Amino acid sequence: MTNKINQIQQYLTDNSLNAAFLTSTDNIYFTTGFRSNPHERWLAVFIPLSGEATLICPGMEEPEARHSGWKGHIIGYSDTENPIALLQQELENKNSKISTLAVETSHLTIDRLTVLKKSFGEFSVQSIDAALNDMRLIKTEEELVLLRKAAELADYAIDVGCKELAEGKTELDILAAVEYELKRKGVTEMAFSTMVLTGKNGASPHGTPGLSKVQKGDLVLFDLGVVYEGYCSDITRTVAFGDITDEQKKIYDTVLAAQQKALEMVKPGVKASELDKAARQVIEDAGFGDFFPHRLGHGLGINVHEYPSITSENDLELKEGMTFTIEPGIYVPNVAGVRIEDDVLVTGDGYETLTTFPKTLQTF
Amino acid sequence: MTNKINQIQQYLTDNSLNAAFLTSTDNIYFTTGFRSNPHERWLAVFIPLSGEATLICPGMEEPEARHSGWKGHIIGYSDTENPIALLQQELENKNSKISTLAVETSHLTIDRLTVLKKSFGEFSVQSIDAALNDMRLIKTEEELVLLRKAAELADYAIDVGCKELAEGKTELDILAAVEYELKRKGVTEMAFSTMVLTGKNGASPHGTPGLSKVQKGDLVLFDLGVVYEGYCSDITRTVAFGDITDEQKKIYDTVLAAQQKALEMVKPGVKASELDKAARQVIEDAGFGDFFPHRLGHGLGINVHEYPSITSENDLELKEGMTFTIEPGIYVPNVAGVRIEDDVLVTGDGYETLTTFPKTLQTF
Repeated sequence: MTNKINQIQQYLTDNSLNAAFLTSTDNIYFTTGFRSNPHERWLAVFIPLSGEATLICPGMEEPEARHSGWKGHIIGYSDTENPIALLQQELENKNSKISTLAVETSHLTIDRLTVLKKSFGEFSVQSIDAALNDMRLIKTEEELVLLRKAAELADYAIDVGCKELAEGKTELDILAAVEYELKRKGVTEMAFSTMVLTGKNGASPHGTPGLSKVQKGDLVLFDLGVVYEGYCSDITRTVAFGDITDEQKKIYDTVLAAQQKALEMVKPGVKASELDKAARQVIEDAGFGDFFPHRLGHGLGINVHEYPSITSENDLELKEGMTFTIEPGIYVPNVAGVRIEDDVLVTGDGYETLTTFPKTLQTF
Repeated sequence: MTNKINQIQQYLTDNSLNAAFLTSTDNIYFTTGFRSNPHERWLAVFIPLSGEATLICPGMEEPEARHSGWKGHIIGYSDTENPIALLQQELENKNSKISTLAVETSHLTIDRLTVLKKSFGEFSVQSIDAALNDMRLIKTEEELVLLRKAAELADYAIDVGCKELAEGKTELDILAAVEYELKRKGVTEMAFSTMVLTGKNGASPHGTPGLSKVQKGDLVLFDLGVVYEGYCSDITRTVAFGDITDEQKKIYDTVLAAQQKALEMVKPGVKASELDKAARQVIEDAGFGDFFPHRLGHGLGINVHEYPSITSENDLELKEGMTFTIEPGIYVPNVAGVRIEDDVLVTGDGYETLTTFPKTLQTF
């Protein structure tokens, strides 16, 4: 982790900044190795231009922070202490004064900025978000090990879900079985709320699983991801339960063709926007252009939705080591919803999908 | 929901503000009835001084927003549209200009404030957080129905967990069974990551369940909560698996006495701080003062940790209809951790606990 703190200190030097103050759980994990949900409490890492960084966390979490490998300084505070005042006290003792501070402007709230200014005095704010996005963009071999493991568990979860399909079972019954088996494998956290949507429910891209029962002739959509040592997977598969209609089949085949089209284009130098446009074209050509209401995909790593966004407007060029999802979908109200999503790694000359559950239409 | 929009409009009038712009999922649910996790996308409700409020949500979630009962205007946007620019266009068409805007300063980020200013032009910002906290502080009968149901499901979950206790089972095995049974009852969301901690693991107030096995002589700590139609429960029970030592028993009895002491003081007019101090005194008197490192409790409602905080420094007077947790704990490293937590409603002349699982030491 020291390496990342050093990288940020180099950024501070290059940009004539005094210090960085990071507050998102993602970037705290990325830079310190400590991962925790602070709810409304303060969790932050203060990185001065030089010297040791300070992790600020609830005092009762100090043992976990140490256990996670953080060797730097820690300010552990109680529920009646102001951790920022404690930090300011330490800065004063060192005669340090903050005049320019790099913060995560995409995360820091107005209230927290006010608290910082109350302790530190006036300072100018600069966003460090783009720099952190860049640092996180190309995954290291160590990170890929975790992403692969997270993807493998997602594949397993889809397999469990498919085997659970049976007439009379509800979406929640199947979801319960999937997450039960994942926990039995040691998974302590899902990357987001698992979706199991059957029949017409699948036509809502952000639907909520409930007590609808699986019926013969349904397409069943699974969208889920696990967190493995802080790294996420995100897979969607749509499978048939019994015989489906020609219309359902056409929708499925179109989504699959769109996904395949985008996948085959992935290699260093191609623009993110080209992927979105190509997949969208396949869907438009098949007459379903009005039923693909979201972007093609999103970056994937510590956060399940991270930089970069794969949209028709993002002209970022792909580079080896980037990881993101490709997930076209067609949602025809009252007919069916189909989405197929893989986690994709850009390789030296193409791509690899980290998720590998079969995509030829599976029937159960 | 119109009622709440009207209340906010009255607040705007009283405070000479042009409009409110709410962005937290909690307050959007509270004011519109629509509950959704937008991840990094915009989800907001714009409330002008008079006239109709506007819900801003991803276009693909418009059907769910309608289904949730929101009858006001909706701006549904695509992944390549700027929803704030769309809102500004509508304001321009009505010749509306924002010069003073109430926002959730505890939620709105620096980046989002910048986006708002880019579209609306310069305006002065006022925090609406305290007013919203006050609106949410006293629960209505309708809200209490949901909180009671959430608490009932939490009681059920503890019961399931206790029945699962068996030698050789891991924390995650037991956790998996608890959440499985909850899903089978229709629970789609936990209020936070469920904790099942056995033996010495319980001595970490924010520990993470893992592959540790339950052993005879362990105290097992369950901390969990469910979300029922948007309202949360939060219960902690610590139970014995087999015979425990006198020291473990003393810790348990002390926590129970501290909780009972605070509970019995609950009635309108008592200060929140008095509860914390009274419970803390019991723990200090028993010689465990160094091992109770957190506040006594927190408000509970749409958010599992909401206003007010029950600390030694919060002199807020309790009122009928307030709901919060009372959860003293003692965590002795390498010995045991015990926490006992109930969801408490302030009644006209005292209190009622919404969670009711037995607190006399249960042995399995």
